Amino acid sequence: MQDQGGRGETSRLEAFSDGVFAIALTILVLDLRLPPVETVTPSGLISAVLDLWPSYFAFALSFATILIMWINHHARMGLIQRIDGLLMFANGLVLFMVVTLSFPTAIVGEYLTGPAAKGAVFTYAVFVLATSGAWNVFMVAMKPERGLLRPTVPASAIATTRRRVAFGFTVYLVAAGLSLINAYLGLGLITAMWGFWGVVAYRALNEHRAWSTEA
Amino acid sequence: MQDQGGRGETSRLEAFSDGVFAIALTILVLDLRLPPVETVTPSGLISAVLDLWPSYFAFALSFATILIMWINHHARMGLIQRIDGLLMFANGLVLFMVVTLSFPTAIVGEYLTGPAAKGAVFTYAVFVLATSGAWNVFMVAMKPERGLLRPTVPASAIATTRRRVAFGFTVYLVAAGLSLINAYLGLGLITAMWGFWGVVAYRALNEHRAWSTEA
Amino acid sequence: MQDQGGRGETSRLEAFSDGVFAIALTILVLDLRLPPVETVTPSGLISAVLDLWPSYFAFALSFATILIMWINHHARMGLIQRIDGLLMFANGLVLFMVVTLSFPTAIVGEYLTGPAAKGAVFTYAVFVLATSGAWNVFMVAMKPERGLLRPTVPASAIATTRRRVAFGFTVYLVAAGLSLINAYLGLGLITAMWGFWGVVAYRALNEHRAWSTEA
Amino acid sequence: MQDQGGRGETSRLEAFSDGVFAIALTILVLDLRLPPVETVTPSGLISAVLDLWPSYFAFALSFATILIMWINHHARMGLIQRIDGLLMFANGLVLFMVVTLSFPTAIVGEYLTGPAAKGAVFTYAVFVLATSGAWNVFMVAMKPERGLLRPTVPASAIATTRRRVAFGFTVYLVAAGLSLINAYLGLGLITAMWGFWGVVAYRALNEHRAWSTEA
Repeated sequence: MQDQGGRGETSRLEAFSDGVFAIALTILVLDLRLPPVETVTPSGLISAVLDLWPSYFAFALSFATILIMWINHHARMGLIQRIDGLLMFANGLVLFMVVTLSFPTAIVGEYLTGPAAKGAVFTYAVFVLATSGAWNVFMVAMKPERGLLRPTVPASAIATTRRRVAFGFTVYLVAAGLSLINAYLGLGLITAMWGFWGVVAYRALNEHRAWSTEA
Repeated sequence: MQDQGGRGETSRLEAFSDGVFAIALTILVLDLRLPPVETVTPSGLISAVLDLWPSYFAFALSFATILIMWINHHARMGLIQRIDGLLMFANGLVLFMVVTLSFPTAIVGEYLTGPAAKGAVFTYAVFVLATSGAWNVFMVAMKPERGLLRPTVPASAIATTRRRVAFGFTVYLVAAGLSLINAYLGLGLITAMWGFWGVVAYRALNEHRAWSTEA
Repeated sequence: MQDQGGRGETSRLEAFSDGVFAIALTILVLDLRLPPVETVTPSGLISAVLDLWPSYFAFALSFATILIMWINHHARMGLIQRIDGLLMFANGLVLFMVVTLSFPTAIVGEYLTGPAAKGAVFTYAVFVLATSGAWNVFMVAMKPERGLLRPTVPASAIATTRRRVAFGFTVYLVAAGLSLINAYLGLGLITAMWGFWGVVAYRALNEHRAWSTEA
Repeated sequence: MQDQGGRGETSRLEAFSDGVFAIALTILVLDLRLPPVETVTPSGLISAVLDLWPSYFAFALSFATILIMWINHHARMGLIQRIDGLLMFANGLVLFMVVTLSFPTAIVGEYLTGPAAKGAVFTYAVFVLATSGAWNVFMVAMKPERGLLRPTVPASAIATTRRRVAFGFTVYLVAAGLSLINAYLGLGLITAMWGFWGVVAYRALNEHRAWSTEA
């Protein structure tokens, strides 16, 4: 029975999680819809399309967020050879937050340029913070002493990733606070954080390390 | 032809079912959408977001429900080596109910805090009851004497799972009745039941039994 | 390179098609949404839910349709070892119609009990007819003399399936005509046809033939 | 660990991308929805359905576009044995544009027959142009000197595909310009381009070359 080997057990969970990541980032586009246009001329339509820029930005930010989380999820699952209750729970929590992200994305798209901008970005930051919280639980489940890792994984690799994930949580906490002072400042910090992680992932991939074992 | 082996035949059905589970739990979020906000201030927006709590609760409950059903589905499919008409039909019925769950979820999210709360929870309970009914048909299809199981699966494991699934049906029947007396009582019982099953799954995973053979 | 073997080439197409089938039947539920309820009492809500029965029926019919088409698609792909342009085109056409089915399903759900019932069922029948047309092209692509089949597949098996698929086209043509006389008659014939095919698939599965090679 | 081989590393990314392609083309149908019909008679409903033809056309065009891009994506990934940062980034960009395509598709469906037709087709052309831009980045990442290709892939095959993809970009640029003069001219050019690529793919498949290695 091929699903009982060390790899088989986790690959099933990874395939399911991949599906959820793929669907979650695709349905983000469903909130990119043009409201009824008043001045129905070619240029009126084009400027209505351009006016949706906060929705595009929020869509692109959340798309990149989920894509980078997928890359990280894949790398982390590659270090694991056995699943236990806490890991399954943490993974479910991560998927839950990934799926949920389309909700604050729609809110930012709708309210970023209006008087409630601070509230919109604060809401987004709180959801990103909760997502980061789920990843922190995931990293606790991956602690070497819990015995789920492949024997060849060095404890230091896990420790580095855990510190980064914990650092992310702190940054999103600051971003939530900042957003109540200035919406663009809060959103900028969140965007910068993903830019940073994108660069980290980009460099790691370029260093020719096997993608699937990169933590 | 790799799909003719004992495992291959069921793995195709399982992959397809996994896809349906993954999509069904992801599209739940599409009902988490903010209605137009009247007081468009940062705090007005945040309190409008908070006012959606019944939708979050229903979303989280249905997400957890589908995730736990996916874990159970995977464990049960791991015991099967051959598919027949009844199993295919029962599996289709389970998938149908899994997909449908987003509908009563939206109703609970919309009406839980209003005067129609009892009707909303009753509707949800009836759909959960029908889902449980589909699982009961699934367990009938898995009866050892029907010859679909792997030879190494003890008959007692199936009997235990069948009893649990039948018990679940009774509990949801009670929950449907209770919801007509008190909406929160009915919803609480359904939530408690999933909590119970979550704990069962959590412990089983921690007992280091192979996930894929756990019934 | 594992994707160059006879099986590998078709399995990629089949996995992709499986994904489309799974998503197409899941998003059908998105049209099951309660309109704003006027009498907001528990019983008013429940009767509003019950009044949606045409939507449930259309949803269940289309769900079963797509599920049975998936079973048939899997069985037919199991007979093929090589893909050419016509088969890829025919498969694309089938997927297009499978995806599209949610549109006439929504129309039947909306208009079945009103004065435009005949038009709604006629629309549904025309889409089912076009789906059947796509399957007929698919069967032409599978003709033994075109050389895509596995060597062990008897020509008679293909001939039988081709006749059935052509017969289906005729039935849906009749159903389209009937629906202009009586909506329920047209819809009943379409439903009966899927019932018939469901029974055929059910029996084939029970005759212990390998699912994946069943045409 | 099966994911560390040359093929395993890319197949994971390909499976994830396949999922996004499959979902992106399926959710296109969600914009095919009938507006409330005024003359609720069978023939009134049918003519309302027929009046939606711009939406059908846009839906069919985008469906074919994504399907052909999927075929090309699969063929191109089959030439790669290693992933680096730029390829991962380019692939993410392609997926982003594939997912986004449902937005201009909805705009064309809504505005093609009205006074803003030129603006609608221009918007569509700009998104197709950006998609083509993403593919051009993808082809840069596949340059032989970057060392990601399988050793057996001839440099000339990549050069041919790169020229075609660059040619496509130019055509879409022209189409964007044309659409501001005449909406149907612009849309016709885009459609013709996909027709051309469909024919190219069709012939390549018929020449019995292995699908998975066709660039």
